[in-house]
Amino acid sequence: MYKIVFMRHGESTWNLANRFTGWVDVDLTEKGVAEARQAGKLLKEAGFSFDLAYTSVLKRAIRTLWTTLDEMDQMYIPIKNDWRLNERHYGALQGLNKAETAAQYGDEQVLVWRRSYDTPPNPLTPGEERDAFGDARYAGLSREQVPLTECLKDTVARVLPAWNDSIAPAIRAGKQIIISAHGNSLRALIKYLDGISDNDIVGLNIPNGQPLVYELDADLKPIKSYYLGDQSAIEAALKAVANQGKSK
Amino acid sequence: MYKIVFMRHGESTWNLANRFTGWVDVDLTEKGVAEARQAGKLLKEAGFSFDLAYTSVLKRAIRTLWTTLDEMDQMYIPIKNDWRLNERHYGALQGLNKAETAAQYGDEQVLVWRRSYDTPPNPLTPGEERDAFGDARYAGLSREQVPLTECLKDTVARVLPAWNDSIAPAIRAGKQIIISAHGNSLRALIKYLDGISDNDIVGLNIPNGQPLVYELDADLKPIKSYYLGDQSAIEAALKAVANQGKSK
Repeated sequence: MYKIVFMRHGESTWNLANRFTGWVDVDLTEKGVAEARQAGKLLKEAGFSFDLAYTSVLKRAIRTLWTTLDEMDQMYIPIKNDWRLNERHYGALQGLNKAETAAQYGDEQVLVWRRSYDTPPNPLTPGEERDAFGDARYAGLSREQVPLTECLKDTVARVLPAWNDSIAPAIRAGKQIIISAHGNSLRALIKYLDGISDNDIVGLNIPNGQPLVYELDADLKPIKSYYLGDQSAIEAALKAVANQGKSK
Repeated sequence: MYKIVFMRHGESTWNLANRFTGWVDVDLTEKGVAEARQAGKLLKEAGFSFDLAYTSVLKRAIRTLWTTLDEMDQMYIPIKNDWRLNERHYGALQGLNKAETAAQYGDEQVLVWRRSYDTPPNPLTPGEERDAFGDARYAGLSREQVPLTECLKDTVARVLPAWNDSIAPAIRAGKQIIISAHGNSLRALIKYLDGISDNDIVGLNIPNGQPLVYELDADLKPIKSYYLGDQSAIEAALKAVANQGKSK
């Protein structure tokens, strides 16, 4: 039996401002750093110890991981930064306030953009300031690999190769792994692992900064999964995520 | 022509307490963190940008690197943690105060232990609390690879394979590299690069938290080397390092 820990980054400045973030590289708030620290404490108390970590190339996930590992006194473990674990690209919505967007286009349209499996928001214009193509951190990628927008289906399509090529082989090799990533890159992984349908994935939310443990069998199929820590706080956090896209 | 940046970690709690540290995993002081932040500022202002970093498995070097990269807004680059870049192992001196040790054994004996090329201090007793063998971060290493004491010659012998197998090929592949390490692992590298004799290496000191730039030719031979930043501050820092092992 294997175990792996997933963690969505702590609260970011744009979580707080309720803006669509996607690939924009915003930092954690002080609360977000405190959440990461608390996650490290919980993991340590629960006896976790890691020998490999994965994260995206976005600093809110990296700082969450660094802070968690610092708290666990495990700063020395290898960290793989993989762009394929980045948040879903939010296209032309990146930077917009979620509630204002909902007031303008209606709650239902925003829910479609946020949670529809295969409807992406409008794309960025290639070469505009928010376009990540040409950024040093994506230096090795082709134009086709750097998205201008994504629906969750697109995110699944780029996250799964990271799982299959890199993460799953490392789990099978006996590595104790933590993955610090984003709401939608983790939803993509969990959809795959738990076999959640394209319709049902709409209802799955992941709170910021809470360690989510998956126990996997020899075929890496989930046996059970659970959040560490105060379950009522996690319920409240889940509800807050679900309500973000509403106009009031 | 290639460029590489070396950096000794910022001030650690045991630099401040003037204790022999070696492989003991002490943290940075607030001043040490500030030095790393300043190093990041200097590197950014000088137009440096990295795509690969090396550090040891000791947190004073890792935190220095993380803080520097944070300041440069380059948290996303790959970091290789290599135990071979650890500080020289200080044997039975680890934990002792340098000035007290000098008062007890004489300045000259301490200078021999600190700077002699091939005289190691007395070894730790295998299995004692300070022995790193069995620590999770050295899990893959044999008893022979985890030292009980080292002279600089021993440190050179383990640092050079890291240079030859990993760092030098990455430089040749065009990677822009920063190495955050320790006084003696860096002295070992510089001795090799600059062809410094076993006698002359005694006089080479490296200040905490100052980016040291090496420009290398096609054969990775140094063309020139220099510290970034305020040269008089660097002179003062070098003098302080040289005086640490004196009784008064």
